Amino acid sequence: MGRRIGARALLFDNPVGIRSWATAAGRKEAGGKLGQQFDFIINHNQFGEKSWERAEQKMQQYALELALEKAGLYGHQLDFFLGGDLLNQIIATSYTARTVGAPYFGLYGACSSLAEGMILGSCLLDGGFGKRAAVCTSSHHDAAERQLRYPTEMGVQRTLSAQWTVTGSGAYILDCAPCEWSITGALPGRIVDRGIKNSSDMGSAMAAAAVDTICAWLEDMNDLEQLDYIITGDLGKIGYEICRKQLLEQGYDVIDKYFDCGMQIYHAEDQDVHAGGSGCGCSAVVLGAKYLPLMAQKSRSRLLLVGTGALLSPLTVQQGETIPGIAHAVLIEYRQGGVTC
Amino acid sequence: MGRRIGARALLFDNPVGIRSWATAAGRKEAGGKLGQQFDFIINHNQFGEKSWERAEQKMQQYALELALEKAGLYGHQLDFFLGGDLLNQIIATSYTARTVGAPYFGLYGACSSLAEGMILGSCLLDGGFGKRAAVCTSSHHDAAERQLRYPTEMGVQRTLSAQWTVTGSGAYILDCAPCEWSITGALPGRIVDRGIKNSSDMGSAMAAAAVDTICAWLEDMNDLEQLDYIITGDLGKIGYEICRKQLLEQGYDVIDKYFDCGMQIYHAEDQDVHAGGSGCGCSAVVLGAKYLPLMAQKSRSRLLLVGTGALLSPLTVQQGETIPGIAHAVLIEYRQGGVTC
Repeated sequence: MGRRIGARALLFDNPVGIRSWATAAGRKEAGGKLGQQFDFIINHNQFGEKSWERAEQKMQQYALELALEKAGLYGHQLDFFLGGDLLNQIIATSYTARTVGAPYFGLYGACSSLAEGMILGSCLLDGGFGKRAAVCTSSHHDAAERQLRYPTEMGVQRTLSAQWTVTGSGAYILDCAPCEWSITGALPGRIVDRGIKNSSDMGSAMAAAAVDTICAWLEDMNDLEQLDYIITGDLGKIGYEICRKQLLEQGYDVIDKYFDCGMQIYHAEDQDVHAGGSGCGCSAVVLGAKYLPLMAQKSRSRLLLVGTGALLSPLTVQQGETIPGIAHAVLIEYRQGGVTC
Repeated sequence: MGRRIGARALLFDNPVGIRSWATAAGRKEAGGKLGQQFDFIINHNQFGEKSWERAEQKMQQYALELALEKAGLYGHQLDFFLGGDLLNQIIATSYTARTVGAPYFGLYGACSSLAEGMILGSCLLDGGFGKRAAVCTSSHHDAAERQLRYPTEMGVQRTLSAQWTVTGSGAYILDCAPCEWSITGALPGRIVDRGIKNSSDMGSAMAAAAVDTICAWLEDMNDLEQLDYIITGDLGKIGYEICRKQLLEQGYDVIDKYFDCGMQIYHAEDQDVHAGGSGCGCSAVVLGAKYLPLMAQKSRSRLLLVGTGALLSPLTVQQGETIPGIAHAVLIEYRQGGVTC
């Protein structure tokens, strides 16, 4: 059963274990800061397929199969499969779901989809509706850019506020069994829209949503001291600065523990990614490749993942509409030796 | 807390009440079989807005506000808002969520999105994570057709297997309080893909998924005798026939209680809709305008809503891929005087 703490935070009475996870990433990502930590690298963006969309689906499937293998499970043993991606009709995830055979909930939260899936997956397991769930998200640079902005072949000059959509996928197996990493709380986000219309400035579109969610969490939980890390999905350096500054204005000095996944993946100086990384795959690979392992350096640690999504529709932006932002928070705790859940 | 019955069915220990609902539909729909039963009619597909996409969003917002009004609630009193639509990035729903201010889970299950939202919403409430949730979906004929097939202005001749995307929206308020209608069980669907590539034959693409879900339900629950209605989302007459025939082959004679929402909305003879209605709005308006009221004609009744979705991506279909289908089942019970939940 779940409990509400304060206005919006949820706590799980039976912490939901993260039994295993796996990350797959592209060649550019492999050349970045986390190159050695990914489980699998696809050496060409086409990944032996005839389209980028197929390549994305295959990459996602590899990540999921690897995570299942680490957990010693087959796809049909999952009670639920939750996920999403940036492609229209989240088609990469639906095709992956086709290979799994488990009951499937398709989600769309743009780059917040991983956190959205982790919240819903945890609620399903903590609520007693199943024993095991997989959460999987992905993004593919070329497939996303041609759909949401310009085809990469056009060589359109990118503005400095633009972020680089990560080619990557992360899969997480949630389990009602003792695990060292577990999801113990969450705070689902609400839409915050500050009137941004520029599809090359997603950081600004999402920052206010991240602030809304982090403040709501800290207000309900009052646990800033106990948190080792607060990591936002993919605000990039512009969004990160806005978020950090606005948190400070709200009285929360998070400077020593607040990081952004979009700034942890590439070498900003020489990989020409401008404001940083983004995409459903961004927080999915950075969480798995960097932060979950980092949490194990202490015998107990506590991380707040704040998945951020800019729900950008190229069509409605062309029609003069603004880009709504959202941020979903998930509390992950690590305990050496594991906890019973 | 939830319980599993058999392999895949879920039962809710605390039935989740459907406290109120509202439906909005377009002019063509108003001229169909249920014309008098809709709560609100939009007399022009543009609904006073400058684009069909804005019209869809406004229609969805009207449906939600009306449902909230019937329940005597404001949007910010909701613990969760779940929903989706057919537009890319489910943007109509995200803009509606912006007006609500409640924590928002964006879903994509094509025409199965209502049932998907009802399952997840019920799990969230039954699991103790909140007290009230809204589930809302919509579709708009012109907005959907130009995105998924051809712009309606082109006047492309529609094949006889094509279905007419319903302009409509339904909103449902779920509540942990005694209600006459309540959601007492569910069975989340898995992807079933029979290799259909024709985007004008959605009924065939979804029928096998509906059969999979209905058979799984009847196997786990063995309650065919107790069910008053089994209603599929929007298979249309081609999909309906396939589904009915395949169920019979599996030993389930459902003929006197099985109906399809896609066949209940238009006058097939003179509204030129070919195989029937479809879209996220189809089951959403038919359930609310026809079947929930119909359930109240008996002092106790039991309906299995099987939301069906063809996860059609125009891009991957152009790339030669097939259309995956899914079907989510929700058990709705009516008891005169209500049940405590």
